[in-house]
Amino acid sequence: MKASELASVLGGSLEGEDVELVACGGLEEARPGDLSFCKDPKHVRLVESTKASAVLLPRDWSHGAPCSIIRVDDPNHACMAAAKMFAPPEPVRAPGVHPSAIVDPSAKLGEGVHVGPFTVIEKGAVIADGAVIEAQVFIGEGCRVGRHTHIYPQVTLREGTIVGADCIIHCGVRLGGDGYGFNNGRREDGSVFIEKIPQLGIVEIGDGVEIGSNTTVDRARIGRTYIGPMTKIDSLVQIGHNVKVKGYSGLIAQSGIAGSTEIGYGCLIWAQAGISGHIKIADGVQVGPQAGVPQTLDGSVKYVIGAPAESMKEFGARMLLPKMVAKLKAEVKELKAQMAAVEGAK
Amino acid sequence: MKASELASVLGGSLEGEDVELVACGGLEEARPGDLSFCKDPKHVRLVESTKASAVLLPRDWSHGAPCSIIRVDDPNHACMAAAKMFAPPEPVRAPGVHPSAIVDPSAKLGEGVHVGPFTVIEKGAVIADGAVIEAQVFIGEGCRVGRHTHIYPQVTLREGTIVGADCIIHCGVRLGGDGYGFNNGRREDGSVFIEKIPQLGIVEIGDGVEIGSNTTVDRARIGRTYIGPMTKIDSLVQIGHNVKVKGYSGLIAQSGIAGSTEIGYGCLIWAQAGISGHIKIADGVQVGPQAGVPQTLDGSVKYVIGAPAESMKEFGARMLLPKMVAKLKAEVKELKAQMAAVEGAK
Amino acid sequence: MKASELASVLGGSLEGEDVELVACGGLEEARPGDLSFCKDPKHVRLVESTKASAVLLPRDWSHGAPCSIIRVDDPNHACMAAAKMFAPPEPVRAPGVHPSAIVDPSAKLGEGVHVGPFTVIEKGAVIADGAVIEAQVFIGEGCRVGRHTHIYPQVTLREGTIVGADCIIHCGVRLGGDGYGFNNGRREDGSVFIEKIPQLGIVEIGDGVEIGSNTTVDRARIGRTYIGPMTKIDSLVQIGHNVKVKGYSGLIAQSGIAGSTEIGYGCLIWAQAGISGHIKIADGVQVGPQAGVPQTLDGSVKYVIGAPAESMKEFGARMLLPKMVAKLKAEVKELKAQMAAVEGAK
Repeated sequence: MKASELASVLGGSLEGEDVELVACGGLEEARPGDLSFCKDPKHVRLVESTKASAVLLPRDWSHGAPCSIIRVDDPNHACMAAAKMFAPPEPVRAPGVHPSAIVDPSAKLGEGVHVGPFTVIEKGAVIADGAVIEAQVFIGEGCRVGRHTHIYPQVTLREGTIVGADCIIHCGVRLGGDGYGFNNGRREDGSVFIEKIPQLGIVEIGDGVEIGSNTTVDRARIGRTYIGPMTKIDSLVQIGHNVKVKGYSGLIAQSGIAGSTEIGYGCLIWAQAGISGHIKIADGVQVGPQAGVPQTLDGSVKYVIGAPAESMKEFGARMLLPKMVAKLKAEVKELKAQMAAVEGAK
Repeated sequence: MKASELASVLGGSLEGEDVELVACGGLEEARPGDLSFCKDPKHVRLVESTKASAVLLPRDWSHGAPCSIIRVDDPNHACMAAAKMFAPPEPVRAPGVHPSAIVDPSAKLGEGVHVGPFTVIEKGAVIADGAVIEAQVFIGEGCRVGRHTHIYPQVTLREGTIVGADCIIHCGVRLGGDGYGFNNGRREDGSVFIEKIPQLGIVEIGDGVEIGSNTTVDRARIGRTYIGPMTKIDSLVQIGHNVKVKGYSGLIAQSGIAGSTEIGYGCLIWAQAGISGHIKIADGVQVGPQAGVPQTLDGSVKYVIGAPAESMKEFGARMLLPKMVAKLKAEVKELKAQMAAVEGAK
Repeated sequence: MKASELASVLGGSLEGEDVELVACGGLEEARPGDLSFCKDPKHVRLVESTKASAVLLPRDWSHGAPCSIIRVDDPNHACMAAAKMFAPPEPVRAPGVHPSAIVDPSAKLGEGVHVGPFTVIEKGAVIADGAVIEAQVFIGEGCRVGRHTHIYPQVTLREGTIVGADCIIHCGVRLGGDGYGFNNGRREDGSVFIEKIPQLGIVEIGDGVEIGSNTTVDRARIGRTYIGPMTKIDSLVQIGHNVKVKGYSGLIAQSGIAGSTEIGYGCLIWAQAGISGHIKIADGVQVGPQAGVPQTLDGSVKYVIGAPAESMKEFGARMLLPKMVAKLKAEVKELKAQMAAVEGAK
């Protein structure tokens, strides 16, 4: 898209060459062909060194730029608008079942459902109106997928999985895999046995949930593993069997929740954090990145960090230990010298 | 299923409304339509507040319940039996190759093998009697899959991978991907090079192994990456090239084992733990959650925790440091005051 | 392969039985049928206890072996050569599109491209000369794949993803999934909202990049998430939206890079490390295993470790704290006793 065309759409004015623009990018990451933006003169140096071909600037910008300038009222806002124009067009997933898909005759598909190539939908599954099931998806027996839910390629839903309405399930997500459960011990003859505990429950996902790429949610031992409404899960997260996430929570990348744990409403579990099994995290609690939570958090502390997790105050004190110990060491040395003097004086 | 019908099957007696029941659930997580259970009067409060439609209770329960009651001899046992009835029926994977599957003519399929839709089995692969290969699986050239092994949808076995008998391989597992290995340095002209080291070995999985969703096991540089019999691996675990897990061990979710490390018999590697490469973990050792093990554990300590991993006693002492330092600080302050007094008295 | 045949190929001399050999393995892991190797007499005990059927040894080895011996000039080198002979033959991916693949008529395939069974290539995608796209891959609208890039089975490239030349993308990799981004707050009526921020950018992968199994790289919010040339990424790594990895870096298994962070040239991010969002890691910096990096590393420290990450010196001091505190405790106890004596003497 020509810079002039873009300026016109954005209600801005172009200064400099009418360059061809193909993408948006931050001032530092931008390359020739990119449009960048700057709102605040304090970033003038980044503007001066940008490799963008054009930059969106405020109307009253007085510092110039090493490329074409498009002056607008609000550079941030204009950049988002431009980004939408540069974005790869969202693929149209028109209603209909691709001829290569294998849909069991007993499965029920609502109005306007899209089913992509090489997708398998097994018997008794129910796909509600407007749902999009992309290519190479596996939907097992008796699964239910809610209205307008979007399932990206190569997702698997094992038998009995329930997904609510308006969910987004990204590539490679695994719902309903067996939970990890084994009985083991020794037989009378001394030999060891390890026996699988049947995982008889299901996974149930509430409305408005988003689940990131390659995340796994295990089916319950009995009953259900439950991800409540509006929960937003990032990539590569692991949710154990019988976990209950009440809803409106965020679980960031590579975090893990062990079996039978309950996460309250409005919690935020940061990246790579781990939460033990059979405990509860109270509503609104945040668990910091890489934290390890071994026991129930009752909400008296709103943010925990460290492994085992503690309050920011406790964690901060722990971080300061080397300094405190060094100071104590010096003080003790001084005291010993004084003591020697006192004793020598006797 | 009607509560009366369930009571009859379980040899119990129904009190209250003959409700329709659809699932099992713990007292706290149960919803209308659910059957719950309680064995011990100490949980009477949970019974009183449950939202289950019926609850399994001991014959001599005297506290009532806010819903229908089914009295049985052993509520836990009865609940497991009920759970099996509520469980989504296990899909039948009848012997036969789905017409959409692509099986190379040189591949050998045993008696009673099931091959699901859109599965690819390449040349020279051998699938033993009774194995189930579900939909959308990829089995590369020369792979071998043992008797009665069950491979769930969307698993990939790269060329040469060997899987034993009676294994369960969950959705999205990747066996035989290249190990991570590069040579790098500078050429005579000063330029940097990074060169791939060919990964010429294979992955070999013993009998009775279970591998959780989206777990990855890398092929050996030379020889084999080996997962010994009865090892149970959870979801999202990473096993590096040339790792040897002797057998009868558990590797919990999101743990990682770096290249060429050996895990002994009967070990338990807890969630998110990381084990360095080229070391050994002795038989029976447990590595705690999020622990980091930088060197060989010879078995003199049976449980390690922390990063770098240490014994529970050492870890406990470390956790107590802030308290100990605060106490020392007060004592030193007191000593300094006393010293000042002593010196002042001179 | 017969030991005699192998000896002949390797220019070595066989002593002992002309055994059949099927694989290579280290001295300790080798099993009957394996060929092992030893260069240095200091490992003579491992040779004595190996279960290999034959072992490659230096010409002047004088300690014997419990199996057949093949004497060669350089046992390590000979073993690599043997490993190549034992390796499962690399599958041939001949030029051509498998008849079951679904390739949009508007997609452009270069010379000699291989497209495997059940692969989907959507409209406008461009696959350059010599690229190999294996089975069950999904390549979304407008994606570009460079020359001689090899994409293994069951990879997904969401719309607009760009992959350079000579890349290797392993099974289950997800490129271009939506980044994690939500606005949330309370409406005037007090109700909570969580709103998806459109992820309008793309993922761009440079030349010579290798990405391990089940790794995920999120598309940018705007602009691009960028993985620079020759970057080598291991399995189960998570790369957030708008991350920029300049190039020639390594990211080891299960590490994670949060959104908008920049990784310099020649960095090494070890396993399970986590790097916060919106920061920079200077060229050549190494982040140790399980380290957590909360803020920019300017390169003044070349290796960081711990969480929060610090220098090896600081980390080492922290590790020594329990010993230092125990020593201080003893010294303070002694001082208190001395002080009591001094005061008692008054």
